Amino acid sequence: MPMRTVSVVGIGAGDPDQLTLQAIKAIQRASVFFVIDKGAQPSGLVDARIAMLETHKGAVNFTVVEIPDPPRDRTPSNYQHAVTQWHAQRADVLAAAITAHLKDGETGAFLVWGDPALYDSTLRVFELMLESGNATFEYEVIPGITSIQALTARHRIPLNRIGEPIHITTGRRLREGLPVGVTNAVVMLDAHCAFTEVADREGGEWDVWWGGNLGTVDEEIIAGRVGDVDDAITAARSRVKEQAGWIMDTYLLRRRDEPDTT
Amino acid sequence: MPMRTVSVVGIGAGDPDQLTLQAIKAIQRASVFFVIDKGAQPSGLVDARIAMLETHKGAVNFTVVEIPDPPRDRTPSNYQHAVTQWHAQRADVLAAAITAHLKDGETGAFLVWGDPALYDSTLRVFELMLESGNATFEYEVIPGITSIQALTARHRIPLNRIGEPIHITTGRRLREGLPVGVTNAVVMLDAHCAFTEVADREGGEWDVWWGGNLGTVDEEIIAGRVGDVDDAITAARSRVKEQAGWIMDTYLLRRRDEPDTT
Ligand SMILES: C[S@@+](CC[C@H](N)C(=O)[O-])C[C@H]1O[C@@H](n2cnc3c(N)ncnc32)[C@H](O)[C@@H]1O
Ligand SMILES: C[S@@+](CC[C@H](N)C(=O)[O-])C[C@H]1O[C@@H](n2cnc3c(N)ncnc32)[C@H](O)[C@@H]1O
Repeated sequence: MPMRTVSVVGIGAGDPDQLTLQAIKAIQRASVFFVIDKGAQPSGLVDARIAMLETHKGAVNFTVVEIPDPPRDRTPSNYQHAVTQWHAQRADVLAAAITAHLKDGETGAFLVWGDPALYDSTLRVFELMLESGNATFEYEVIPGITSIQALTARHRIPLNRIGEPIHITTGRRLREGLPVGVTNAVVMLDAHCAFTEVADREGGEWDVWWGGNLGTVDEEIIAGRVGDVDDAITAARSRVKEQAGWIMDTYLLRRRDEPDTT
Repeated sequence: MPMRTVSVVGIGAGDPDQLTLQAIKAIQRASVFFVIDKGAQPSGLVDARIAMLETHKGAVNFTVVEIPDPPRDRTPSNYQHAVTQWHAQRADVLAAAITAHLKDGETGAFLVWGDPALYDSTLRVFELMLESGNATFEYEVIPGITSIQALTARHRIPLNRIGEPIHITTGRRLREGLPVGVTNAVVMLDAHCAFTEVADREGGEWDVWWGGNLGTVDEEIIAGRVGDVDDAITAARSRVKEQAGWIMDTYLLRRRDEPDTT
């Protein structure tokens, strides 16, 4: 008996030309697109996905199914626990939507911002769905260009110095301090400009390569010594947010001291 | 006066369908492709690039310029110094090739495996070229799907646990020990299966998600507890190398202990 099939498709982090051929082929195979309606989600991000479908849709007609996102406790006492519980609820809602809207033998797709492996809960929710047995389907994952890659491409810089590790972390974690020896870090999910405190906390001189709303018409990039450019970045964040109605930013922080690679 | 323009184009890490629309457009704009002829480089990797050009070339005729790679000391006493010196030599050779083969107003391209920002020297060499003043041109960087993204997509796993940092490192660095607190690491550039020793060095139980020659016909993937699957991975490495004539592999290592995310 033919199964349901679902593709989890990375669509890049802003520029529609970051779509891969593999992603376009997956879009063309699908007849049902599931869109998770995050109440707080800026409408620009949903519109961008719909525009991609219109541009690249295959011969088949497609339908878009909006799935309301379960409410989430944004100020939990235990962060990990709250997130886990919210994922379980989301798994139930998705399983119900897939069962209701995707017939056996049909193919559905979820379009995921950037790459589905990078700070995104979709794949975790998929595992929960299949473990619970509430929905049965096969699925595949299609990689997408991440906001990190959009950042380094626009600044034309390598992520790593020679032979050096790369550390990717969150604003929350940066504020707790970098692991000893880490002098090169990409920071995501930071709404509070945690980079402004990095030199005070970690010591040394730090440079920052920053990008906001990369790949979109409102994109801005700034690079320089942290102490020299932090005001410019704060101002750019407000400007971008004002223009676009939303702001997402990512940056690379690097300590000036030469790394010890001997 | 119109300048020379050069695109540094990430082409994905094996699967030609990982090309982005942006990369295809850059290929179609270029009339000269520069290919660095690494003596030791497996011919399969060069052939893959030529096949992409044939598939996606624009209306314009293109020429391929092969650039011999300067010889490199593979057993230097000072690794960092040897690499720096080799980059400087390479910058001279590239500058000469660009000046000789690209007229003002023309566009050339370098096709880079995976993403140009990830453990690749092209962008560093470009900076040296422009600093030296031996060649003048404008350039842009186009991101590409990395082997890390190919790995996580095939295993259908997120790179990070909830809120956790991601550490990307080399086989050489893994053998020197992970930074304190890092329990989730992607390892590249490892010809010696350094993961087999991770539990002995770092303590705890570790799982590995491994992939060799991802995105190619010879691709193999293996996942499991390090102690259970290391023989299978060693065997798969030999098999892939035997079949393809080359092997490149990447893996994610993760300690089983729950991360502390409170
Ligand atoms: C929930 S994570 C998702 C990341 C996504 N999966 C990716 O591959 O880029 C959201 C974070 O990604 C970063 N981000 C996403 N899109 C961005 C863009 N266009 N410009 C700058 N940063 C972006 C920001 O750090 C934001 O806080
Ligand atoms: C010099 S680095 C270049 C990485 C490349 N820029 C990228 O974005 O993936 C070469 C390393 O990349 C990894 N790699 C590249 N292609 C791969 C593939 N198809 N499968 C598995 N690993 C690969 C291996 O770890 C290899 O040692």
